[in-house]
Amino acid sequence: MSTVDTTPRELPSEHAQLRTASHGKAEVHLVRVEREGPVHHISDYTVSSAIRGDLDRIYTHGDNATCVPTDTQKNLTFSLARDGVGTPEEFGLKFGRFMAAEWPQIVTGGRWQVMKVEWDRIVGDQGPHDFSFVRRGKEERHAVVQADGGDLRVVAGLKELTVLKSSGSAFVGYPKGTYTTLPETTDRIMSTDVSAWWEYNTLEADWDGIFASVRHIILAEFAERFSMALQNTMWAISSRIIDTHPEINTVRMQCPNNHHFVVDLEPFGQDNPNVVFYAADRPFGDITAEVVRTGTTPSDLAWGTIPSFS
Amino acid sequence: MSTVDTTPRELPSEHAQLRTASHGKAEVHLVRVEREGPVHHISDYTVSSAIRGDLDRIYTHGDNATCVPTDTQKNLTFSLARDGVGTPEEFGLKFGRFMAAEWPQIVTGGRWQVMKVEWDRIVGDQGPHDFSFVRRGKEERHAVVQADGGDLRVVAGLKELTVLKSSGSAFVGYPKGTYTTLPETTDRIMSTDVSAWWEYNTLEADWDGIFASVRHIILAEFAERFSMALQNTMWAISSRIIDTHPEINTVRMQCPNNHHFVVDLEPFGQDNPNVVFYAADRPFGDITAEVVRTGTTPSDLAWGTIPSFS
Amino acid sequence: MSTVDTTPRELPSEHAQLRTASHGKAEVHLVRVEREGPVHHISDYTVSSAIRGDLDRIYTHGDNATCVPTDTQKNLTFSLARDGVGTPEEFGLKFGRFMAAEWPQIVTGGRWQVMKVEWDRIVGDQGPHDFSFVRRGKEERHAVVQADGGDLRVVAGLKELTVLKSSGSAFVGYPKGTYTTLPETTDRIMSTDVSAWWEYNTLEADWDGIFASVRHIILAEFAERFSMALQNTMWAISSRIIDTHPEINTVRMQCPNNHHFVVDLEPFGQDNPNVVFYAADRPFGDITAEVVRTGTTPSDLAWGTIPSFS
Amino acid sequence: MSTVDTTPRELPSEHAQLRTASHGKAEVHLVRVEREGPVHHISDYTVSSAIRGDLDRIYTHGDNATCVPTDTQKNLTFSLARDGVGTPEEFGLKFGRFMAAEWPQIVTGGRWQVMKVEWDRIVGDQGPHDFSFVRRGKEERHAVVQADGGDLRVVAGLKELTVLKSSGSAFVGYPKGTYTTLPETTDRIMSTDVSAWWEYNTLEADWDGIFASVRHIILAEFAERFSMALQNTMWAISSRIIDTHPEINTVRMQCPNNHHFVVDLEPFGQDNPNVVFYAADRPFGDITAEVVRTGTTPSDLAWGTIPSFS
Repeated sequence: MSTVDTTPRELPSEHAQLRTASHGKAEVHLVRVEREGPVHHISDYTVSSAIRGDLDRIYTHGDNATCVPTDTQKNLTFSLARDGVGTPEEFGLKFGRFMAAEWPQIVTGGRWQVMKVEWDRIVGDQGPHDFSFVRRGKEERHAVVQADGGDLRVVAGLKELTVLKSSGSAFVGYPKGTYTTLPETTDRIMSTDVSAWWEYNTLEADWDGIFASVRHIILAEFAERFSMALQNTMWAISSRIIDTHPEINTVRMQCPNNHHFVVDLEPFGQDNPNVVFYAADRPFGDITAEVVRTGTTPSDLAWGTIPSFS
Repeated sequence: MSTVDTTPRELPSEHAQLRTASHGKAEVHLVRVEREGPVHHISDYTVSSAIRGDLDRIYTHGDNATCVPTDTQKNLTFSLARDGVGTPEEFGLKFGRFMAAEWPQIVTGGRWQVMKVEWDRIVGDQGPHDFSFVRRGKEERHAVVQADGGDLRVVAGLKELTVLKSSGSAFVGYPKGTYTTLPETTDRIMSTDVSAWWEYNTLEADWDGIFASVRHIILAEFAERFSMALQNTMWAISSRIIDTHPEINTVRMQCPNNHHFVVDLEPFGQDNPNVVFYAADRPFGDITAEVVRTGTTPSDLAWGTIPSFS
Repeated sequence: MSTVDTTPRELPSEHAQLRTASHGKAEVHLVRVEREGPVHHISDYTVSSAIRGDLDRIYTHGDNATCVPTDTQKNLTFSLARDGVGTPEEFGLKFGRFMAAEWPQIVTGGRWQVMKVEWDRIVGDQGPHDFSFVRRGKEERHAVVQADGGDLRVVAGLKELTVLKSSGSAFVGYPKGTYTTLPETTDRIMSTDVSAWWEYNTLEADWDGIFASVRHIILAEFAERFSMALQNTMWAISSRIIDTHPEINTVRMQCPNNHHFVVDLEPFGQDNPNVVFYAADRPFGDITAEVVRTGTTPSDLAWGTIPSFS
Repeated sequence: MSTVDTTPRELPSEHAQLRTASHGKAEVHLVRVEREGPVHHISDYTVSSAIRGDLDRIYTHGDNATCVPTDTQKNLTFSLARDGVGTPEEFGLKFGRFMAAEWPQIVTGGRWQVMKVEWDRIVGDQGPHDFSFVRRGKEERHAVVQADGGDLRVVAGLKELTVLKSSGSAFVGYPKGTYTTLPETTDRIMSTDVSAWWEYNTLEADWDGIFASVRHIILAEFAERFSMALQNTMWAISSRIIDTHPEINTVRMQCPNNHHFVVDLEPFGQDNPNVVFYAADRPFGDITAEVVRTGTTPSDLAWGTIPSFS
């Protein structure tokens, strides 16, 4: 490959010896979709694998003959999830047993850690939804009051409302060119952390009731409407909020596109009919929209120091 | 592609209109290596692009004909960096001008944000190093004293010492099989956040002086020794610490492998001779080692409540 | 107070003028307890106040005659909460109106932001509890499998289960001396983020069922048992887990004491009968316990790389 | 104190026994100022103490007779720092030895962990400053380019530039009233994390050179000018930037007031001549200012999506 000499050789020490060692891949964020007819179930597991065993010469000689790469352990995480993950304990046991059987000369021990977080099924206008979910609990409710002279304005909002739908979403028809590598899809996971802020045109309102209604509209439109793009869903939400609530004049939304990539399992002799996904952290799509009641404009006072998106 | 009907159609609203909108790709973590003969320079830029323009029908009709995908904007970030990034201001201007020229019918405006963080050149045993760097400032110094009866033990450590070398590192010779997709390499970026803890065999020592020396050994060995694997580098560091400091009996290290992937620029008609990298967050390799002075064992008391790695 | 000359004087500039300015106190974490007979309701509000108005000379002359201190705005947050907070919107409006009325010559405008997070009432052995709550949603479920040769061990756990009880907790009878300033109390808020890990003595178990049962025991014991100290509650939980589940040999818990301090409202002419609290971030109490099945010892293999507490 | 029965009583278990236990105070953020004539040195230590020993009945009986409160351990952290902290190792040893000597019947062991972070002395216009410091390394440099039609605008900025001065700062002369509890001071610690953004009126500039100059102005004005309030310092910085750089029209700054409270050591028989401070996290003061070149106004396009403060 190059002229670098990569022959293993000892790096000796007068006083030191290697006592314990391990290597592995940490925090593989795996999302698995189980399809029971039209009803989906999702498992959100973050998996860390680390092996122990005959690893000394990797350290002391730079000899990788026993170094099952951390990349291979990552691949295995996805491959083992192809036909189901079971409970976290079962997935850990399966992983550990597989590695011991596959590399019996090398892997004499290890640690497999699985972290599970919970999603709730979204209850939309038509009851519990088949394949749309909301992440339990990071959500924040906000209210901002601004004053100038005797003038008072109220903007309310919610942040960190994380939702995911494992079907019912397409992305097609966009411009292609030199810098396009993205393939079209009519069935994908769509997930976002909704930030929505809305400006009231009144100082007397059923604040709790309207908040609950806006939150319901977000969840119902996300879950029950087929999405042609995240933008399309954001319009459906924002316009319905304004059509429903005469007390609201402006809605601003910011929605990251939390990418879930279908993992290619072909190198391992497996197909992947949209069941095993890798959930990426960064970069993320960043979509914003400001929708107003026809004939009105947002108030500078109301929005003055609120993060602006568009 | 499927039987889903993806024909754009209007989603009308009685009262709402779209006022402003944007979409883009946020937080593309780009690392660029500039090679001036044997001397490298690195640029660590996190770039967010967002376009404004003729985007309304994406929202209101699900019509993506003007939707330059966020994925395309991500690709462009890397492609534009191929021949240099300049200052953050220059890179932002170049990005904005390129998009306006490439999609004049669509992109009438936008925002390009660039965040730069600084790395210092490592000063090793032989002075400033050609291609090894240390991230300025997140570093923590720790000391843990534990007692049992009259017995006292001291463990010291450092965390979040982030280092990167843009050459001088290989990974070859590992086992290949069904689950291996990683290619071998003899020239790659190697980067980690060093956590190192060491156990003293004394209660009287030049604490500051030894700390400074251990920190120097970590930086010098990382920078100046060719690495056959991160494990190999960790052994070089740990064994040298023990060989150098008779006051230290045990060294425990944990080092994530902060992956930097070479971006494939071929689809855009460009080569990428190891100059443009994507810095990933998760998952990461997780490598641990415990090295002891020959003939000693770590003290349970000393290490009792310190995060254990191996 | 000293010989420093603090007379205001102008700091002139040739080209610059102050255009807008504000100052305030950000992120006052306020917890209010509403007592409806034996039933409590809690409001968890994080409040940021910032005023605008006649503030120029503070900047340009160092003249604080119009500088209503941010400390005063913090005091006001607590004082205004004495008799109820209402919805976030109502609290923001009340705050803004109060400041305009109190300092009409100074405060011509401002921003009051309120962030609310939700707590659910704990359902214990005896149904919904009067004054015990669990924070919605940050919770993580963990499983760790470790192997050595043919030996496999399973440890399961949960983290970030945040709970609070607004009564039913005392702390008395501790040693007093030179360094003691803490007063005794028989009615306080007790709150913690439970981390609990337990070692199984089997590889075949109803993993989901036992997890659910352990989680229920934690919530029920926290809610329904009077606590003499957080330690006392941790023992009640751990021993009941072991008494209930023969598959579990060891339970390790780590619980920060998330301090909630009763705010002194006397300077403002108000009493505070345990209704207005300041929720502190750091430092926090840090309590650990390891409870085992009588006659057993924890397995080194099982616990090897799991954060150890005691 | 009330009618609650707080008599210790056993909470028995059929199968469980307490194996290990500890309690302590975690993350006491201590800042100590050493005064060598006019020259100050600061130590930034975050200390966690945890004791082991005769603690079983606290858990099993709710009997706190041996429960040295975590609050007492916090007090001790500050008291022990009164006359110097030494290295982290020395402070940990001193802490552990003190507790064993003070409560020999109770404290048979424990853990004392000290985390140190580094501050550099600020180099201002007149060289290294006696008592002003900058935190090593969290700093971010930003550039934002915005476009609309052919119009391009550049805003640059820096964030997370953390500075502290241990003298040379007063806060007096503010309005007092019902809600004022803050005492005046003419010698305090002043610390902030500077966020500064500035708008360029050109697309061709020495971007790196101006950035370096702006950063220097921030550090020099912060260090070398006596401050009558954080606002006063922000004006000094902003107006000097505009007076110095004709390419810059607007400067926006946001500065939290990172409170450092003088710890009351009187209960422990010690004075505290501004040497031992508690560094609080939240709430914090929040100060903003927008300063413009006389006769200009900020561009809506330039600032459109940048967090706005005032």
